[in-house]
This record gives sequence, structure tokens and C-alpha cells, in this order.
Amino acid sequence: MKVLLVFAHPEPRSLNGALRDVAVKELEAQGHEVLISDLYADGWKSEVDRADFPGLSPDARLVPVAASKKAFETNALTEDVKTEIEKLLWADALILQFPLWWFAMPAILKGWVDRVFAYGFAYGVGEHSDKRWGDRYGEGTLVGKRAMLIVTAGGWEDHYSPRGVNGAIDDLLFPINHGILYYPGYDVLPPFVVYSVDRFNEAGFEPVAERLRERMRTLATTAPIPYRRQNDGDYLIPSMRLRAELGDPGAAGFELHLNRGAAD
Amino acid sequence: MKVLLVFAHPEPRSLNGALRDVAVKELEAQGHEVLISDLYADGWKSEVDRADFPGLSPDARLVPVAASKKAFETNALTEDVKTEIEKLLWADALILQFPLWWFAMPAILKGWVDRVFAYGFAYGVGEHSDKRWGDRYGEGTLVGKRAMLIVTAGGWEDHYSPRGVNGAIDDLLFPINHGILYYPGYDVLPPFVVYSVDRFNEAGFEPVAERLRERMRTLATTAPIPYRRQNDGDYLIPSMRLRAELGDPGAAGFELHLNRGAAD
Repeated sequence: MKVLLVFAHPEPRSLNGALRDVAVKELEAQGHEVLISDLYADGWKSEVDRADFPGLSPDARLVPVAASKKAFETNALTEDVKTEIEKLLWADALILQFPLWWFAMPAILKGWVDRVFAYGFAYGVGEHSDKRWGDRYGEGTLVGKRAMLIVTAGGWEDHYSPRGVNGAIDDLLFPINHGILYYPGYDVLPPFVVYSVDRFNEAGFEPVAERLRERMRTLATTAPIPYRRQNDGDYLIPSMRLRAELGDPGAAGFELHLNRGAAD
Repeated sequence: MKVLLVFAHPEPRSLNGALRDVAVKELEAQGHEVLISDLYADGWKSEVDRADFPGLSPDARLVPVAASKKAFETNALTEDVKTEIEKLLWADALILQFPLWWFAMPAILKGWVDRVFAYGFAYGVGEHSDKRWGDRYGEGTLVGKRAMLIVTAGGWEDHYSPRGVNGAIDDLLFPINHGILYYPGYDVLPPFVVYSVDRFNEAGFEPVAERLRERMRTLATTAPIPYRRQNDGDYLIPSMRLRAELGDPGAAGFELHLNRGAAD
């Protein structure tokens, strides 16, 4: 497979840097081809602003959605964004690797999403009718490809457990896994998460590295998170509400959007 | 009251810009004092990187948590960050205003959080013992102050409803409301959300503006979201798991962290 790893840590000599090297080495040992977008090293620009739309007249109001649509349609996106889009089209699998800062991705990676996931490419794709509501959530430009997160967290695993005070890790990552990756069509694999990294030591590294190698060896075969496809009948159109009869009794929150019957 | 509004839209002539002006005007009409941090206009730097820690020796490994702690303790944070911390200490209420991009805040605002919410200021505060686990989630530096979000979303309200395909808006905003605002001590008010903004027209503006004015008039009195305080006994220490007997029957997801009995 061809794999794109987007890396968002400012320090190459970090645990994240070491884990990245482990992942890349194992992927290459398995015969995969790997590209890295190292956002800090590349000096990635994080902010969506007028500079992203050179075709916009200086007096014109910047409407980000409309400007993104026009720039994508006319091939007028900036070169850095075009390059990332090419990489996404090239790759069979996308890995986003980052430290969890304030329960979300670092700004630089959010800025990669904000800028690269253009209208017409990652959203605003497909027809709207009484049968379907755009190509999104399981359909879209990136359908047939796989994606997964590699995340490090300072807090304890218990604190991210289903009843932990931070909120469950799967719920905290839902806006990314479902909202950013599943939306344009990716099959999203369960995340690889390392906890308590502020208290990490050398002895703890090898077991984590081996767990990561195993995930890299199974990148092509691991079952994706069974999110419900938007246009397959589970949601009413156009309200896009989940049909009343669906969802486990007592299910609430993001859990509703998983088709548990589809998981082995 | 003293109010800080952090504004994260690149276009002043946007719906967000118009709503900001409505909010500020109403707050001032009520006798409140308002400061604005206009992140795009101020050229806010989004990325946590070595430049944030001028005291760090060029050869030293950048460990963001440790560097943040040291810089805060030695008053060596950069001037832009110090200024924002002063504003947060000054303000009785904080408003974060932003367009919802990919189900989260724009990178520039995430970068404001990543950089301003320093160790020793917004996290890493308080003692850890068998009675308490730091001053966080309802305690902390910013306790006694109020915070709320003003958010615009391109999607339909139905799609963000409790069974909507995007996930419920309250769940999508939980990592911000609970993880970023409640964590350092704020009382977090229900968010003000405007939907379908890509199809917004002039006629639609005034009712939304009036709804926002009402929220500004009640900023000091609106009941906060009844999140559970971490150190008041609802969570086991040190696992920080919610006690087995708590939570409505059938509750799951982030809903668990609300004390419904405490709501009026």
C-alpha cells in the first residue's frame, strides 16, 4: 500500500518522533511505500486567510466556503495545499499522528485540515436529492482508502475510559474520526493511543513500539470503526436524523452512529 | 462585568463580524466593559514551537509541557501570550466566537488555546492527594468566571440534533466546553449557535441578532451547564471514573458528566 503519515509534533527527538520512526520502519519492512508530511519541519501555514485565495480580488469579502469552492474548481489553490491533495489522492492509507492537546489536535494539524480539505474535494461533493445527501459519511472523494490516528496523551488511560472524567477517548476523537476522516469517505480504523506520556520512560517504550508495529502490520486488514453510512437508509432525508428504530436501547451520544451489528 | 471576546474569523465583513458587533454593542449598552482579541487582525501565531520558549537552549529537546511550566514559573512566556493571560485574569466573562470548521474551532483559535493555556495557569494547578486530583474541572485559576461560545455552522440544525448525522452539537462542543473551559475553572454557559449560515440572508439576520442580544443581556445570570465537579465526590480518586451509582439509567457518552439533578 501507499501510506501518507501526517506528523504534527514540533520536536523530532520526542516520543512522537520515535513512534513515527517505528511506524515508518515497520511499514517499509512490510513493503509499503511511505510519504511523510512533517508539518512543523515544513513550516506549514495553519490559518485559513486571504493568502489562500490569490484569485480573490482585494476588495472582495472573503467567504471561506465560496472561496474554497472557486479555488478548487479553477485549480487555483495554493501550491502547498495542492501538494497535500495530491498526496491524499496517491495514498491508500492516511495516518494522522499528533499529541492530544486540550482534547483535540494541535493547531498546526487543524490548520492542515482546514486548508487541505477543500470544498469540492473533501466536502461539497455529490448530489442532493430525496435519496442521498451529498457524498459524505462513507462516500466521497477518498472512499476505498483507510485512515487512522496515532495519538499521545498526557493523562491516564482511566481518565479517558468510558466513565472517566475527561470523557471517553472514542467520544473525544469522534469529531476527528467521524467528522474529518469518515466524512470524505475514509474507512477509519480504531486509533492507536498512548497514555500517561508525561511520565513515560525508556523501559515503557518497547512494549508500546511493539503494539504500534502490530498495528502497522495489520493496517490493511484491521476492521474499521463501523460508522453508519449516511445514504444507505439509516438516516431520514433531508433531516439526516437517525431513524427512530435504530440504535441500541439506551444508546445515546456518538455511540448512536455506530452500527454495532456490523462489528464482528 | 468585564468581558473578553476572542474572535476567530478572517473576514470582518462576515456574519461572524456582524454578530460580534451586535454582541459588543449590547454588552456595552448593559454597562459591561468589553475587550476584543481579534486573532486574525492581530496576526496571532497559531503553532506551539520553540519560539514560544526563548529561554530554552538551542540544543535542548523541546518538551512542550515542561517548557510551558518553566516559562510560566519564571515569567518567561512570550509577550503575546502574557497579554492574553492578563486579559483572562481581568475578565469576569470569556466569549470565544468562531465558525465551526470540521466540527471544531479554526486552527488560529486552537492555537490561542494551545499557547495561552499554559502549565501552572490553566493546567498543572493544585495538589494531588487521595482527596483531590489537582484544581481542574470546576476548580482552578479561572474559577468564579463565566465562559460561553458563539458559534456559526454551515450545516442544518437537524443534522446537529441529538440523533443527527453530524453528532449532537452539545457533544461536538464538549471537548471545548468541558475540556478547555470547565477544566481551568470557568462556569460554562450553554453555547449560542447559528445554523445553516451558508444559506443565510439579510432577512434572517435580525431574529438571530435579537436572540444574541438576549444572551448578552443574561450573560451574568444564565445557568451554567451543570458539569460535575471533579473533586466533590462524584469521581473515584485516582482513577477519576464516575462512581458506578451515578448517571441517569441508560446515560452514556458525555451526558454522564452532567449532574442533571443540579439543573433547575
